[in-house]
Amino acid sequence: MNKPKIIAVIGGGQCTKKEAGLAEEVGRELAKRGAVLVCGGLGGVMEAACRGASAEGGTTIGILPGDDSLSANPHVQIAIATGLGYARNIAVVKSARAVIAVGGSYGTLSEIGYALQGGIPVIGLGTWSLSRNGQEDSPVIPAQSPAEAVDKALKLASKKGEK
Amino acid sequence: MNKPKIIAVIGGGQCTKKEAGLAEEVGRELAKRGAVLVCGGLGGVMEAACRGASAEGGTTIGILPGDDSLSANPHVQIAIATGLGYARNIAVVKSARAVIAVGGSYGTLSEIGYALQGGIPVIGLGTWSLSRNGQEDSPVIPAQSPAEAVDKALKLASKKGEK
Amino acid sequence: MNKPKIIAVIGGGQCTKKEAGLAEEVGRELAKRGAVLVCGGLGGVMEAACRGASAEGGTTIGILPGDDSLSANPHVQIAIATGLGYARNIAVVKSARAVIAVGGSYGTLSEIGYALQGGIPVIGLGTWSLSRNGQEDSPVIPAQSPAEAVDKALKLASKKGEK
Amino acid sequence: MNKPKIIAVIGGGQCTKKEAGLAEEVGRELAKRGAVLVCGGLGGVMEAACRGASAEGGTTIGILPGDDSLSANPHVQIAIATGLGYARNIAVVKSARAVIAVGGSYGTLSEIGYALQGGIPVIGLGTWSLSRNGQEDSPVIPAQSPAEAVDKALKLASKKGEK
Repeated sequence: MNKPKIIAVIGGGQCTKKEAGLAEEVGRELAKRGAVLVCGGLGGVMEAACRGASAEGGTTIGILPGDDSLSANPHVQIAIATGLGYARNIAVVKSARAVIAVGGSYGTLSEIGYALQGGIPVIGLGTWSLSRNGQEDSPVIPAQSPAEAVDKALKLASKKGEK
Repeated sequence: MNKPKIIAVIGGGQCTKKEAGLAEEVGRELAKRGAVLVCGGLGGVMEAACRGASAEGGTTIGILPGDDSLSANPHVQIAIATGLGYARNIAVVKSARAVIAVGGSYGTLSEIGYALQGGIPVIGLGTWSLSRNGQEDSPVIPAQSPAEAVDKALKLASKKGEK
Repeated sequence: MNKPKIIAVIGGGQCTKKEAGLAEEVGRELAKRGAVLVCGGLGGVMEAACRGASAEGGTTIGILPGDDSLSANPHVQIAIATGLGYARNIAVVKSARAVIAVGGSYGTLSEIGYALQGGIPVIGLGTWSLSRNGQEDSPVIPAQSPAEAVDKALKLASKKGEK
Repeated sequence: MNKPKIIAVIGGGQCTKKEAGLAEEVGRELAKRGAVLVCGGLGGVMEAACRGASAEGGTTIGILPGDDSLSANPHVQIAIATGLGYARNIAVVKSARAVIAVGGSYGTLSEIGYALQGGIPVIGLGTWSLSRNGQEDSPVIPAQSPAEAVDKALKLASKKGEK
């Protein structure tokens, strides 16, 4: 069986119009290239990305904090209702072979931390920039456009399994 | 979008040959009726159920305790690597509209507890029988065959959303 | 440093007057013998047990589902606000060297499953009775009184560390 | 009952000698002022902070990722073995009224994200600096010394309950 590549799209449950536009385009690009989109299943960046992927016939998975799948945005096809609260953030990123962060709230920051801890590459579109102890380089890989973000995500996708 | 019904199959990561046969048949029946199978993604009952569903062209989701999708059995199509350990048990059942328990270990017992707490019906094939304070009736609904278990699961499936 | 034995008391967030009386007496007995009480931190059996332990000068830990320590009952001294929802059940029992179940709801059932899975003994006072495949013996060890439950818990306490 | 203020100390399980020195001093200062220290219970920054707090007679809580309390460092008095893997990070910070980050790995980053999401102030000693969309100000409050970090943590400690 040929397993699809799963790529996570993370970002705020509320977002700007510009961020929603970027996320929707990321979703479209992922679907066009046959990747499965996983996200936190709620609104904002998550909903926009699912809308884009669905419009191109892609598969969308939403890993929800609550225990009712009705809380998923309407473009989530497979709703995983975890009942775990924001501890579900770790499952969103660990399920993916690469992560694309669009904009970003504090929850997004926790997801970036978990992804990097697990050796999963994080590509950023206008998201957090991180530095430690005065080091210059952020471990988040910047992209200038949704297409570039998806290119980088698929190229850098963790090899450790057919996630 | 017409969302599929998600039904969980739970049971031990190690199981008897008879239990594996029952689980595989449950998987086949679920796929034939268009339901999506969710499970814990590992071996034993989980693997047998996924094998059956896959053989009939059904969709299989495995919600794994670890953070590597390679730990999924080969019949899992969508692997959710949670990194949550056995706390992932709650996500397995909360994602489903009904639960079918085949045989069962102590982990299965924790899943039965979570399902019943969430108002999600549990159908049992040779699984735990529970009584409280000398009450006679177990809250686990017995079935005599895989087909009967799937019938009951789809009939009793929680109405609270298109899970 | 001499680490205290941690014993979990589990049971419904709502309970009968009789169950509350049993739980309070369990809490008293644990404190008298120098054990630390861990529980889910909410009402019902949990609150009654903490009340009893506090009255005897014992230490009480509440591992809460939510993210606000104000939700703890007033007799919890150390509130661990997890934000994990009912996935916190696993932490309640895994922190303990033995578990005493008083009465019991479906959440209690999930905790019994997790404890038994981890090899942690469970002593029951009017709680779930479990049988599998027609086997007669429940893995829950019955006790006839709070004092007997505490005796058994301390005697059977898991040796795998100074939990 | 007068509940103690719980303050989290977060940082890498492996750390430099300088970071260990800072963490130990943070632990000492917290204990001197009557605060309870909560941490992830393992080595590196966590162990150094617990060593400092214990030396001053303070109380130390370790919220462990695994399910064996023997994995706690020797200066943890109350070991909460969660079995939740790194999802336990959320419980470490949500249990606290303020967080002090010393140095920091990617796991620390996930904890900073969760704390800020919950409105819990984060004080940093040589930890991550964060910026979003070219904004200059990091939401992590810098401190120049352990004493200053503890001063700020106790002053800014979340008021939302006697955590």
